[in-house]
Amino acid sequence: MLSVLAIGGSLRRDSFNRRVLQAAPALALPALQISVYDDLASVTLFSEDLEVPRAPAAVERLRHAVASADGVVIATPEYNQSLPGVVKNMIDWLSRGEPVAVEDKPVGILGVTPGAWGTRIAQSQLRHALTACGAIVMPMPQLYLRSAAELFDADGQLIDARTRDSLAAFLAAFAAWVHKVRGTAIQGRSA
Amino acid sequence: MLSVLAIGGSLRRDSFNRRVLQAAPALALPALQISVYDDLASVTLFSEDLEVPRAPAAVERLRHAVASADGVVIATPEYNQSLPGVVKNMIDWLSRGEPVAVEDKPVGILGVTPGAWGTRIAQSQLRHALTACGAIVMPMPQLYLRSAAELFDADGQLIDARTRDSLAAFLAAFAAWVHKVRGTAIQGRSA
Amino acid sequence: MLSVLAIGGSLRRDSFNRRVLQAAPALALPALQISVYDDLASVTLFSEDLEVPRAPAAVERLRHAVASADGVVIATPEYNQSLPGVVKNMIDWLSRGEPVAVEDKPVGILGVTPGAWGTRIAQSQLRHALTACGAIVMPMPQLYLRSAAELFDADGQLIDARTRDSLAAFLAAFAAWVHKVRGTAIQGRSA
Amino acid sequence: MLSVLAIGGSLRRDSFNRRVLQAAPALALPALQISVYDDLASVTLFSEDLEVPRAPAAVERLRHAVASADGVVIATPEYNQSLPGVVKNMIDWLSRGEPVAVEDKPVGILGVTPGAWGTRIAQSQLRHALTACGAIVMPMPQLYLRSAAELFDADGQLIDARTRDSLAAFLAAFAAWVHKVRGTAIQGRSA
Repeated sequence: MLSVLAIGGSLRRDSFNRRVLQAAPALALPALQISVYDDLASVTLFSEDLEVPRAPAAVERLRHAVASADGVVIATPEYNQSLPGVVKNMIDWLSRGEPVAVEDKPVGILGVTPGAWGTRIAQSQLRHALTACGAIVMPMPQLYLRSAAELFDADGQLIDARTRDSLAAFLAAFAAWVHKVRGTAIQGRSA
Repeated sequence: MLSVLAIGGSLRRDSFNRRVLQAAPALALPALQISVYDDLASVTLFSEDLEVPRAPAAVERLRHAVASADGVVIATPEYNQSLPGVVKNMIDWLSRGEPVAVEDKPVGILGVTPGAWGTRIAQSQLRHALTACGAIVMPMPQLYLRSAAELFDADGQLIDARTRDSLAAFLAAFAAWVHKVRGTAIQGRSA
Repeated sequence: MLSVLAIGGSLRRDSFNRRVLQAAPALALPALQISVYDDLASVTLFSEDLEVPRAPAAVERLRHAVASADGVVIATPEYNQSLPGVVKNMIDWLSRGEPVAVEDKPVGILGVTPGAWGTRIAQSQLRHALTACGAIVMPMPQLYLRSAAELFDADGQLIDARTRDSLAAFLAAFAAWVHKVRGTAIQGRSA
Repeated sequence: MLSVLAIGGSLRRDSFNRRVLQAAPALALPALQISVYDDLASVTLFSEDLEVPRAPAAVERLRHAVASADGVVIATPEYNQSLPGVVKNMIDWLSRGEPVAVEDKPVGILGVTPGAWGTRIAQSQLRHALTACGAIVMPMPQLYLRSAAELFDADGQLIDARTRDSLAAFLAAFAAWVHKVRGTAIQGRSA
């Protein structure tokens, strides 16, 4: 069994990115136990001043959830041709603390947008920032979902067949990635 | 007279980026009236759900301060080889509302870091995001300040002579950029 | 009258990006005199060793064409989620020499792709590199053209009405951008 | 034994990046057989027209060298705050052909610059483009070398002790990365 923490990068109640992740458990292999993180709104804006004497409770909960999972999947929107502040703020907290929760952690990235452009740049920036924190981001497959309004039914269920297939393939590849990464710990630090 | 709103992208009390901006008024031409924005910590994490019926009061204050200024200068740290979530979250709020506060607004970018690498990537991402919002970012000069601890005295005053000269030149160029941009409004929207 | 040099970033004979530029003269205001540069294939791979005693003749011709134009428009493909080597190699040559041909030069960027993703990342990287060279890149409107095969007829003529309108608006905005930039020379260099 | 192809991204005869790679064999574990590729200048500017009936001979040699190696290490300069055209042009060729030479290939990235900024952005763009081609780029350690002129002696030998240690650690980590990646083939394609 592999435990996967799935984090949607939008705080909106009806967020497309969270909905995609909510469809994941039914599409994943039985060996993948996916839980959707749902308290990102409590993770306050980062400041070093808030780290003393210890990080806020919501940050500690997030760090613990990430550290406890075998792998993490992040679904991100794209705002202003770049990574949303909400997602980057989460990364900024996760990059700190002892130990660093995302270090050596297998991470998968995807994103969905109501627009045409598929979160290409946001995912690129997210991949870069996570790598800088020591996470081991799955390089392929990459999942860029657009025209979000067409993918879900009125109840917010992911019904687009092609997207469901892509997501299932993504999750299967991610399980293999987690296994590969867990082989040996080889990560060093930037020089 | 040109009014300039200066925003430091770190919430830390002793932030190097805020300190650089606090040195700006004494280094700028008399025609540049620089005020340092100091309530970024109140700008909550972005969510579309918070825009109804209207954006939070702190967001509205920020938008009004930006809209009222002739130009905006942002000093950003770099976290995890990328733009801090705090700064991007501010941009995400500024990119919304009617009218968009940063649209057609002249903006100058700089950054300071205690490390060696000078906020190169953070500034690149900030420039890109601001441009995507319709801001008119000054292309040159670019100001990358590193080894921050060596630039200030014990009271947090910017004492490094070369940095003071660079900042003065940056501000003089920014005044010229504001004048150039205000010539005519020519911005369209992405197609 | 404004003279505009239009450069297509693909060497392929039937390049979509060159075809878009070939449609530009008929869509531009009469005051815009657009000529399409057609010898990028002769611009060899950059090496400092080739700059002594002077840059290759094809490089000098390119530099002269850029320096002589009032503005430059570059249409770029996207390869591997990034700027093509052919385009960046051209920039690398243009960033050198005395004077630097692109310095203070107004530049417009667009791109067309047969795929779905509209050269978003390539344009972002091109904008960044040009800015680093001292060019003054038009921030908006941005023109991302996709599904290229549907935009042209069998003779390679740009027939898609919406694209023609977008291109005409882009060119009109670029003319205004050139006028704005030429107001005063204010560019400094990176510090 | 692992065979590693080392490619310097500058064509200059006295290139710092090539010199760093030339120091690699003496610093690597005996199990790492490193050969420096030295014919990048023959890899012509990419054009789809040149792929028919088959790619140029120099491209085929490069592809064969990459495909035959167990891993590839690329040392890149940074020009104009971005990846040099010479390096990206190589990637553009390597991303094509059947099979794609870099697909599922372990790749390590480093860079050296005479300036202060350590090829931060160039490496970021190189990592992104390689990942888009299906390569499996080592996330850490990252090696950013600056002030190149101080690292070598008059004969071009890498003599800076700290840099030699960093490079040795980088190569040891890369050997482990190659072993990890070769565990199982799990790569899919972008969806």
